[in-house]
Amino acid sequence: SGSAAMYGRYTQELGVYAKEEAARLREEAAFRRLVTERSRSLDLLEYDKSRCAKCRICTVHCQKFLISRVGEDWIFLILLGLVMALVSWVMDFCIALCLQAQKWMYGGLDSNVVLQYLAWVTYPVVLISFSAGFTHIVAPQAAGSGIPEMKTILRGVVLKEYLTLKTFVAKVIGLTCALGSGMPLGKEGPFVHIASLCAALLSKFMSLFGGIYENESRNIEMLAAACAVGVGCCFAAPIGGVLFSIEVTSTFFAVRNYWRGFFAATFSAFIFRVLAVWNRDEETITALFKTRFRLDFPFDLQELPAFAVIGIASGFGGALFVYLNRLIVQFIRKQKAINKFLMKKRLLYPALVTLLISTLTFPPGFGQFMAGQLTQKESLVTLLDNRTWAKQGIAEEFEYIGHAAAWKHPQANVFITLVIFIVMKFWMSALATTIPVPCGAFMPVFVIGAAFGRLVGESMAAWFPEGIHSDGVVYSIVPGGYAVVGAAALSGAVTHTVSTAVIVFELTGQISHILPIMIAVILANAVAQSLQPSIYDSIIRIKKLPYLPELGWGHHEKYNIRVEDIMVRDVRYITLNCTYRDLHDVLLTERLKTLALVESSESMILLGSIERAQLQALLSQQLGRPRRLEYLRQRAQNERKQVSIVSTPSSEEGNHKANHEVRFQVIPVLFSLPYFFHSLGLSLSLSLSLTHCLSPSFIFFSISFFSHSCSSPHLFFLPFSLSLSLQIAEWEELQLDEQVNFNNCKIDPAPFQLVERTSLHKTHTIFSLLGLDHAYVTSIGRLIGVVSLRELRKAIEGSVTVKGVKVRPPLASFRDSGTSSSDAEVTELHKLWNRHTNLTLPQDHQPSDSDEKSQ
Amino acid sequence: SGSAAMYGRYTQELGVYAKEEAARLREEAAFRRLVTERSRSLDLLEYDKSRCAKCRICTVHCQKFLISRVGEDWIFLILLGLVMALVSWVMDFCIALCLQAQKWMYGGLDSNVVLQYLAWVTYPVVLISFSAGFTHIVAPQAAGSGIPEMKTILRGVVLKEYLTLKTFVAKVIGLTCALGSGMPLGKEGPFVHIASLCAALLSKFMSLFGGIYENESRNIEMLAAACAVGVGCCFAAPIGGVLFSIEVTSTFFAVRNYWRGFFAATFSAFIFRVLAVWNRDEETITALFKTRFRLDFPFDLQELPAFAVIGIASGFGGALFVYLNRLIVQFIRKQKAINKFLMKKRLLYPALVTLLISTLTFPPGFGQFMAGQLTQKESLVTLLDNRTWAKQGIAEEFEYIGHAAAWKHPQANVFITLVIFIVMKFWMSALATTIPVPCGAFMPVFVIGAAFGRLVGESMAAWFPEGIHSDGVVYSIVPGGYAVVGAAALSGAVTHTVSTAVIVFELTGQISHILPIMIAVILANAVAQSLQPSIYDSIIRIKKLPYLPELGWGHHEKYNIRVEDIMVRDVRYITLNCTYRDLHDVLLTERLKTLALVESSESMILLGSIERAQLQALLSQQLGRPRRLEYLRQRAQNERKQVSIVSTPSSEEGNHKANHEVRFQVIPVLFSLPYFFHSLGLSLSLSLSLTHCLSPSFIFFSISFFSHSCSSPHLFFLPFSLSLSLQIAEWEELQLDEQVNFNNCKIDPAPFQLVERTSLHKTHTIFSLLGLDHAYVTSIGRLIGVVSLRELRKAIEGSVTVKGVKVRPPLASFRDSGTSSSDAEVTELHKLWNRHTNLTLPQDHQPSDSDEKSQ
Repeated sequence: SGSAAMYGRYTQELGVYAKEEAARLREEAAFRRLVTERSRSLDLLEYDKSRCAKCRICTVHCQKFLISRVGEDWIFLILLGLVMALVSWVMDFCIALCLQAQKWMYGGLDSNVVLQYLAWVTYPVVLISFSAGFTHIVAPQAAGSGIPEMKTILRGVVLKEYLTLKTFVAKVIGLTCALGSGMPLGKEGPFVHIASLCAALLSKFMSLFGGIYENESRNIEMLAAACAVGVGCCFAAPIGGVLFSIEVTSTFFAVRNYWRGFFAATFSAFIFRVLAVWNRDEETITALFKTRFRLDFPFDLQELPAFAVIGIASGFGGALFVYLNRLIVQFIRKQKAINKFLMKKRLLYPALVTLLISTLTFPPGFGQFMAGQLTQKESLVTLLDNRTWAKQGIAEEFEYIGHAAAWKHPQANVFITLVIFIVMKFWMSALATTIPVPCGAFMPVFVIGAAFGRLVGESMAAWFPEGIHSDGVVYSIVPGGYAVVGAAALSGAVTHTVSTAVIVFELTGQISHILPIMIAVILANAVAQSLQPSIYDSIIRIKKLPYLPELGWGHHEKYNIRVEDIMVRDVRYITLNCTYRDLHDVLLTERLKTLALVESSESMILLGSIERAQLQALLSQQLGRPRRLEYLRQRAQNERKQVSIVSTPSSEEGNHKANHEVRFQVIPVLFSLPYFFHSLGLSLSLSLSLTHCLSPSFIFFSISFFSHSCSSPHLFFLPFSLSLSLQIAEWEELQLDEQVNFNNCKIDPAPFQLVERTSLHKTHTIFSLLGLDHAYVTSIGRLIGVVSLRELRKAIEGSVTVKGVKVRPPLASFRDSGTSSSDAEVTELHKLWNRHTNLTLPQDHQPSDSDEKSQ
Repeated sequence: SGSAAMYGRYTQELGVYAKEEAARLREEAAFRRLVTERSRSLDLLEYDKSRCAKCRICTVHCQKFLISRVGEDWIFLILLGLVMALVSWVMDFCIALCLQAQKWMYGGLDSNVVLQYLAWVTYPVVLISFSAGFTHIVAPQAAGSGIPEMKTILRGVVLKEYLTLKTFVAKVIGLTCALGSGMPLGKEGPFVHIASLCAALLSKFMSLFGGIYENESRNIEMLAAACAVGVGCCFAAPIGGVLFSIEVTSTFFAVRNYWRGFFAATFSAFIFRVLAVWNRDEETITALFKTRFRLDFPFDLQELPAFAVIGIASGFGGALFVYLNRLIVQFIRKQKAINKFLMKKRLLYPALVTLLISTLTFPPGFGQFMAGQLTQKESLVTLLDNRTWAKQGIAEEFEYIGHAAAWKHPQANVFITLVIFIVMKFWMSALATTIPVPCGAFMPVFVIGAAFGRLVGESMAAWFPEGIHSDGVVYSIVPGGYAVVGAAALSGAVTHTVSTAVIVFELTGQISHILPIMIAVILANAVAQSLQPSIYDSIIRIKKLPYLPELGWGHHEKYNIRVEDIMVRDVRYITLNCTYRDLHDVLLTERLKTLALVESSESMILLGSIERAQLQALLSQQLGRPRRLEYLRQRAQNERKQVSIVSTPSSEEGNHKANHEVRFQVIPVLFSLPYFFHSLGLSLSLSLSLTHCLSPSFIFFSISFFSHSCSSPHLFFLPFSLSLSLQIAEWEELQLDEQVNFNNCKIDPAPFQLVERTSLHKTHTIFSLLGLDHAYVTSIGRLIGVVSLRELRKAIEGSVTVKGVKVRPPLASFRDSGTSSSDAEVTELHKLWNRHTNLTLPQDHQPSDSDEKSQ
């Protein structure tokens, strides 16, 4: 399985990887030896009849049992859940401390507004700058949400450095600081990443005990469960977590793995909440943002249009948020002057953004109109309050208790405060999520949605002070219910998920508004999905991650595009009887990771595919150091026989001497050519990879040999014999003309094949299902083309962007005119059949063109 | 796509299907003509300037617009949701009427216990008998739950008659009567089937307006959404419905289709509940079984062990239920005497079972100890009550209000009543669900689970009368919460789903017990899944439906079985240059639906696969009526030329006469051979299918021709010339020796291929993902074996049944000993390479066996 993992890694160079692998194997072996030795020494203890020994024997047995059970999935999932719950709780604790510290500073300096402002502003700027700097230094991959990357990784692509301990440390510390600053940032997306990191590290750690953890497909299954855990322990929402992570990261979901997510997320959420109980924060296990809406009459049937309006407006709002977010990123990238300056002073952009946002939220300043002193959590709690703020349109009548007082302003009524809050937070959140710190956009969007829902709810309450219901009993309108609906709808629109509804139920602990929420979320999704990609897909596009976009809703014209319209017809291939020179040429001109192997260029029958690395290995084996040395040694021996300088020494000594001689002869030759053609610096920096080599291969091999052997600098400026170098070149030419021996080469004998008439829709499904990177297009065994993710992406995006207009591929018109659907196939087969008929029954021979016409 | 659908149908014979298809096309054409004509006539109206016309023009435009939009998915989903909500509501209404009628009869006859008993017993017996009889006569496929069949259909298998109007009618009426009888039966499973039926019929109906509905893969997507609608409108639980249907019917789920289920199920649930509001049953939209547990302190942390116990016990209970259910079915099947008798009197078994169950629940009889007079719904409502029945262990202290009074018995306390209820309902439900009427097991199990939970809850309440919490405030225990947990756990255990938790939240409208419910459901699932298959998988096994079993949890030994260990090595294939005789022989000996096409039997390079029907068509084309007639006509003309009986008539007349002559000559010949070899009755009953034909092919073709042409009985006993028949036989022999012309034959040029070293785990995944029926095993282009669902199922079941013991496939031992993982591949390739080397470089030729050894 080690080699299988190797082929999966395409981002790391082979040499680096081989070294790492060797180091890893050494470490593992050492660890195993240690464990085995210790257990053996403890085995011996059983014979030692002292008192203390019994106790120790028992421990050993327990240990053995535990180690034997450690391979089970549920142990892994429990550990993962436990660790993540602890991480989540500790982080929440630290974030709360940070926020409290800011409040304490701000409160303590209330004598001087300037000092207060400085404290209010400096604190987040320092924290965000530290977070950005720390992330950049330790692991730049930790910046941002992490969900787009997880989506790509679960798609089967290996992203370098995204699942390492360094990234874990950077993400956890960076996220704590970022959220502790009080900026409008979320912890959900990063938590998905952190949980995945945790799973990857745990799996690596546990593979020291047994071999099961090395299984590739099992690791992917565990990562999927980890994503669920991430959301689950962030919001204490196990069901919503599982569903959200499925919607956000998967294209096809194996129901078989369903239980893993539920098990781990439930356990994690349970521990997360139990910690709160143990810490005396809560009396018992309840929801994170518990609401207390009335149960008997949650809402009136006639309020449904208002909920639908929230849904549709949230749809537009969500699309606008994604658009705004992308616009900001693209604006900063495009302005080259700004970009250059920012790249130099990496911490300036985060600091400036933080300064701007914190200045605007300064409570004695503009912040008083937008409840600036409330943290994100406090705002959400007040927004989900079950009391009505605006009784009969007059805000003053309501007694504001606790944090809710922040929404009251002597000059402005609650509607104005809410509108300002929504507008300001909207662009602030869109801007803040572009800062290169670990942060998500879910929670800010959730709060904005809740505020929007509250606004609509308060308006409704002001409009119908006695409620809408007309059957005697007065059921007043509950604006908090509207806030819940708005939160679910807007976050659903931004992330393109329906499961935000479930998250909301679990967050609030009430499900009475299920139908309004579902309706609003579905409407919001419908609107948002037709306008913009989800925030995660948008980031995938911005970052240009290798991901396959989804087929849009009801784009029926895609059933009409076929593989033959998008495939690359000019496939580079190698034949079974090719020479090393062909191999070398193909490797130089072709950039694909794998190459097709066909029987011969006439028959073109596809036999399999070979990894690029395998071919490079073949080539370097043929022209590599051992064979070269062998050749030179033989040549030297021949010369020696002719000249007879050394007169019959002892065989050992002779060999040694011969080796030395050869070395003195050889090395100058080998670096002579690069010395001629390249500067020394260039040749030393050349890597092992053939893709960087633009000179003929023999030069390349000389260089690589040279850079390996010339650790002793005194060999550098030795003279060389030109005749020998010419002989070497000749030898190389001869070697290149030999036929390739594929015997020790790993060949994938069944690469994925498609027929040229496969529809785009089906191709997309197969690529997504099997996580393919490319597929060969064959016609009755013959290779006729290749489709890679790139072509597929282009085809899908091409037809997605041109709305309404049907994108007709070049050959589609031919197809529609014909009635028979299998003309091409038949013709193709006919040719083959004729060939065989002609071969086997020569007496029936007819001119082949007349045969073609009879078709 | 018509032909594609045709190939999918394997249960119907081709002839029957062709007739049906023709009839369908005729009908469609007629309908389309009607629509077109009407719209055309209305187009003309635009020029008619009368007043009334304007109104009609407007209508026409609206109609046109609607028809153009009708192809959209969401229109279909809304229609589906609407129809299903109406069906669900009307059925509930009818069931409530039926149950009320029984209560009214029973209540009216309270003067005489015997009459009361007769009324109590006769009513359900009549209803169940009617339901069983009606189902049996109209559509026997409608009996039972329907979820196992839907699971199989969504897997890609076409089950005959499972999605027709007849089945729909039988299912709806049968289910209404069955549930109206008051037996412990559920409506959930059948509702999944009804919704799918509805979707299939709606899709058929709407395909009259446009072509999109004929797309095969789209129909499968719609069926998946329909399953969600079924559960959603049955329980007014849209989210739970979607999740439950995914868990129960899918193996791999396309997240792309997620929204369809949510959209349709939400709409359906909404309409279903709005109907209740409009009918004044409810004041506003709320949950179906609304609970009113306290929100501030739902449960104590120390109650969690009790919830866990409920979960584990429910796991065992669920497994026992599935086992009991299967045992009853198998017992009745095995007892041949009983079976024979029951088969004769089909209605006896349902009537007997109903008699037994209703006798035991007779309220003045044994029913008084098990709340016999309560309907299923009433029991559930009382069980979820938020008050405590047993204060301090003494049942008498509680004031029983309404239906809850049924649980009180003067002699027995509430614990005894609950235990009797649980035990009796348990076997009754297991027995009742074996009756051949449309019925599900979900609801009865749900009620039993609730009763069990209540029992534990009441015990806890009796044990801790002051609650467990010790911080001053008394929070008494809520037994209703335990009932909710028990219901979710037991139904989860029986169906092997986690989403029953979500269904419970939506049914009760409260989510405060989320963590206990999740923990109990997961524990119940863990226990049940390790003991028994789910009730649906159990039925799939009993009915022997073509379904692929799931791989168990953590069966790691399966990673070690490879395709080469389970594949069939003796593949029947056809070669490109085969004769019709080979074709005929292969068709006679091979039963597979598709046959492999290879280049030649030496190279064995796989070129594609051909449907059996295509080959039959090729064969009958070669030996069929037109060519036969052609041959005979030519032969007759030749004879005529020789004998010159007819002297130059007018060409028209001559042809006519010649035809007649030929006919008189031919027909005797053609039926002569069957007349010799077979009795007339046998030959007439022979179908068109080659698989039933055991005699040589020329006889078969004579028969088929004969049975087609001999509609005029006066030709029957004409004399025949033996020489002619011999000539015909000779002609047939010649025809069979010709080489097959594959030109007009549909070939699948890329059948699914696996490598021999693919693991069982991966094979299972690929088969499930792509819904494969069989896959060819190839080694570098060469066909070496075939794996079908059957082999895969055997391999999985073989290793599942033998618990603990590792099933080692025959060749596995070889594998473990070797260190190199690709020996086989290398050797294979080596051979091929050698072949080519030898061909291209004959000067390098070496003895091939020494070459083998050098490996």
